[in-house]
Amino acid sequence: MGEFDLIARYFTRPARRAVLGVGDDCALLQPAPGTQLAISCDMLVEGQHFFPDVDPFALGHKALAVNLSDLAACGATPLSFTLALALPHADESWLEPFSRGLLALADEHSCELVGGDTTQGPLNICITVFGEVPVVGGKSQALQRSGARAGDDLYVSGTLGDARLALEALRGTLQLPAEALAQARTRLEQPTPRVALGQALRGVASAAIDVSDGLLGDLRHILTASGVGATIRTELAMDLAAAGSRLAVERAAISQEKQLEFVLSGGDDYELAFTAPMSARDAVRAASQLAQTPVTRIGSIESETGLRLVDAQGQLMPGRFSSFDHFA
Amino acid sequence: MGEFDLIARYFTRPARRAVLGVGDDCALLQPAPGTQLAISCDMLVEGQHFFPDVDPFALGHKALAVNLSDLAACGATPLSFTLALALPHADESWLEPFSRGLLALADEHSCELVGGDTTQGPLNICITVFGEVPVVGGKSQALQRSGARAGDDLYVSGTLGDARLALEALRGTLQLPAEALAQARTRLEQPTPRVALGQALRGVASAAIDVSDGLLGDLRHILTASGVGATIRTELAMDLAAAGSRLAVERAAISQEKQLEFVLSGGDDYELAFTAPMSARDAVRAASQLAQTPVTRIGSIESETGLRLVDAQGQLMPGRFSSFDHFA
Repeated sequence: MGEFDLIARYFTRPARRAVLGVGDDCALLQPAPGTQLAISCDMLVEGQHFFPDVDPFALGHKALAVNLSDLAACGATPLSFTLALALPHADESWLEPFSRGLLALADEHSCELVGGDTTQGPLNICITVFGEVPVVGGKSQALQRSGARAGDDLYVSGTLGDARLALEALRGTLQLPAEALAQARTRLEQPTPRVALGQALRGVASAAIDVSDGLLGDLRHILTASGVGATIRTELAMDLAAAGSRLAVERAAISQEKQLEFVLSGGDDYELAFTAPMSARDAVRAASQLAQTPVTRIGSIESETGLRLVDAQGQLMPGRFSSFDHFA
Repeated sequence: MGEFDLIARYFTRPARRAVLGVGDDCALLQPAPGTQLAISCDMLVEGQHFFPDVDPFALGHKALAVNLSDLAACGATPLSFTLALALPHADESWLEPFSRGLLALADEHSCELVGGDTTQGPLNICITVFGEVPVVGGKSQALQRSGARAGDDLYVSGTLGDARLALEALRGTLQLPAEALAQARTRLEQPTPRVALGQALRGVASAAIDVSDGLLGDLRHILTASGVGATIRTELAMDLAAAGSRLAVERAAISQEKQLEFVLSGGDDYELAFTAPMSARDAVRAASQLAQTPVTRIGSIESETGLRLVDAQGQLMPGRFSSFDHFA
């Protein structure tokens, strides 16, 4: 099967929102008046971001999910995306479920595939995603990393830690009960981008980021960009622990300390970490309800730079946690 | 060196045109009123699109050039791009010249790097490029593949065949005089995207495509999208033969027949193939002069579908030429 047949069979659908879609030299997009375009780009590599034997349907989902998560962190409404795909060979038994997983999530967010590239090579999936952010009174409504102010509350959506728990189990560094592994694995392989929450937080949150490399590491980007510091209350952060790790602790498969480590620096969670003024607590609650996405307040922003963890007694904990870094 | 240091050192520059550039979850672009955004995406893989020992400066140039060539084929004005890069290891002696080659071409076209991703993995370069096309009276000025009409002239810019000539020499399937190889190799490794010509052809050309997979194969996309056919006069097409192959023929390193094959189906040329009504011949000439890019008329569009080659005597030549296809 030729390259162009491949594209046609699995990835071409009639253009909807785009003026011109897959199959010309360029896709054409007509952004709505009074909007900005938010753009993000993520590359997934076999062995680095997923196991060679991962379910292709789940992989299609995840490849788009991690990109939608970046749009969520900006409060952008998804519009469209391009897909560049390097494949060792044109394997239909892989392409069919991969495209199904990818396009199912795309449809869920009305995010249209408008172009891309396919080539032979070691498996590599590169998606660039486009979203829309309103500009009101000349001011962008995009959530950025740089808006956190001393006194702001610090929140995280959903749950943290299960993606890393599953990763470690699949690597064989720990053993899990089957039920805990199943729950954790879903979080690793099919994360839920918090797109609705991101949009609901426009005009409410002062800064936001998506948690992809681990909470502490990603939070540092907000602190650096905003020129502030933060204190996290670990007993509140523990409320973020996901279902798989709770079960694993219950069954004594991992320690509570390991659970906290995964919450604080696990990685691959694709939740939103964000800040908002104390005066916006009701608005944050309303955004959470509107988006049907739980959020947990875990600490606060301070003028003193640096990141501090305190325990239930208010005692400073030593800095033991570092984040994921692909080249670290 | 960590991933984020890497990005900072080689790829971060202050945002210019973009509202928000490298280093947040998303880049933000504010398209000008009355314009459409043209988007294209190309992935380059080691061993498939370039040799492992290619000069990294040239590779940086080429990675962006092939994307700018897609914008050129749409008549779009370059705005910005994202870069996703998978690297086996963070090698500064590679990154430094690669980023120089990339950003030198970017600067030449005022095309700003606004975001991206770096990760560990087999070398893979994925660029998504953004350009601007005016909309006049509700009508997009983008050049598309579907506008060719019977009676139109068929043109190609610049020269063809040297990229393939160099490729075959580097693969060892033929021997070239050093001077011919040097000329051909520059065309393979540092192609010139015809950005100015594409813009000058807005409102003049009826259809356009960039020649990346070989003239005949790419031309077929125009014919299919437009529902027409074409006849190419091979003695006119031979005028497109590039300097390296002319020298190679002169020195008897390749036959004229091989030269014609490389012109018609060599690939990796990054010239523009386009059609325009006969009434636009003066306008095409003016566009060529404005863009300081030679163009050659090689045939015409006909209502009878299919692609025909005729020799100097007007005799039909047998269809011996096929195009590059990565999965063929």
